[in-house]
Amino acid sequence: MDSSKYTSRLLEKAVNEFAKLPGIGRKTALRLVLHLLRQDVSESESLAGSLLQLRKEIHHCRICHNISDQEICQVCSNPGRDRSQICVVENIRDVMALESTQQYTGVYHVLGGILSPMDGIGPSNISVGSLAERVASGGVREVILALSATMEGDATNFFIYRKLSEHSVKITTLARGVAIGNELEYTDEITLGRSLLNRTLFEESIHKP
Amino acid sequence: MDSSKYTSRLLEKAVNEFAKLPGIGRKTALRLVLHLLRQDVSESESLAGSLLQLRKEIHHCRICHNISDQEICQVCSNPGRDRSQICVVENIRDVMALESTQQYTGVYHVLGGILSPMDGIGPSNISVGSLAERVASGGVREVILALSATMEGDATNFFIYRKLSEHSVKITTLARGVAIGNELEYTDEITLGRSLLNRTLFEESIHKP
Repeated sequence: MDSSKYTSRLLEKAVNEFAKLPGIGRKTALRLVLHLLRQDVSESESLAGSLLQLRKEIHHCRICHNISDQEICQVCSNPGRDRSQICVVENIRDVMALESTQQYTGVYHVLGGILSPMDGIGPSNISVGSLAERVASGGVREVILALSATMEGDATNFFIYRKLSEHSVKITTLARGVAIGNELEYTDEITLGRSLLNRTLFEESIHKP
Repeated sequence: MDSSKYTSRLLEKAVNEFAKLPGIGRKTALRLVLHLLRQDVSESESLAGSLLQLRKEIHHCRICHNISDQEICQVCSNPGRDRSQICVVENIRDVMALESTQQYTGVYHVLGGILSPMDGIGPSNISVGSLAERVASGGVREVILALSATMEGDATNFFIYRKLSEHSVKITTLARGVAIGNELEYTDEITLGRSLLNRTLFEESIHKP
């Protein structure tokens, strides 16, 4: 729709701002803005307010770079978490995904990206240095590499593995295999081959949740 | 995803606000908020600012109820528009759709909804009274009913037709027929039947854009 068709410049401006968001086109942006116009003014104020407050008051945890309301995040400041186990993830959403499994009691390290020459992300753009420092400061027993099972993820895994090789720390990675609920015939051959090589004792598998 | 998995209450609050928007779920809301966190702070500020400014400064045109930056909208205040022709539409998006055809030189009347007992929208919720006043004040030659071709649209058309019957004004409605670009075999029988009954002279059709 031609921008000259907007009968209000204020409306057009708001639509343009919403349309900058990923996955939001101009038609969707218009729908969202018109929705907000129909609602009480407090709706728009609380949306705008929460956004401004978030940007003003949010921190990245000084230890693990996770998003946090404080200088140190909830996980790092929790005395019940095992500080000798660090799980390395790409971003905050991965932390949330792992936390929702309720299977992990260690701490995290958020890289903020994975190595991807195509997207211009090199070693200096991800927080591997601070991970090495955490390991070097001692007390770390295991580093779990929990990056995506992609080429970029594998390359980053290997890069971190080499960076940490001078320290005597156990480095593990997430199990690769057939996803639970997936049918065998639709599982790709690389995953299937890997899951065959890394097969586990049936007795062990039935005792796991 | 369980809300307790958010490691930041500020983040959770912003996600909740975005998730209130229509068609935006919690996962999409999180993606949008994390995107804004990665951008410069000015991006969030201009989004929030445009929204607050819109809510504060927007008007609904006193004449036609169209959205506007001024008391009187661009269309109603344009001396080049024909005030004797009023096109009745449901909402602002319909005004934009009709404006983008560049075929209409009259003015509008935005109802703000159509009669829909299921959604609790009755005659008092749509601005038919002010339409009747505009017609009663004289100088109006034609009222074009441009509502959706649905049951609710038809009912609203009939309601307006009755309301205006005491005035000597021509009341027309948009042509129903096979949409341009549509194949005949996929056109529903009611539309096809109506387009057959209301067939136009071929000579006339070729001279229209």
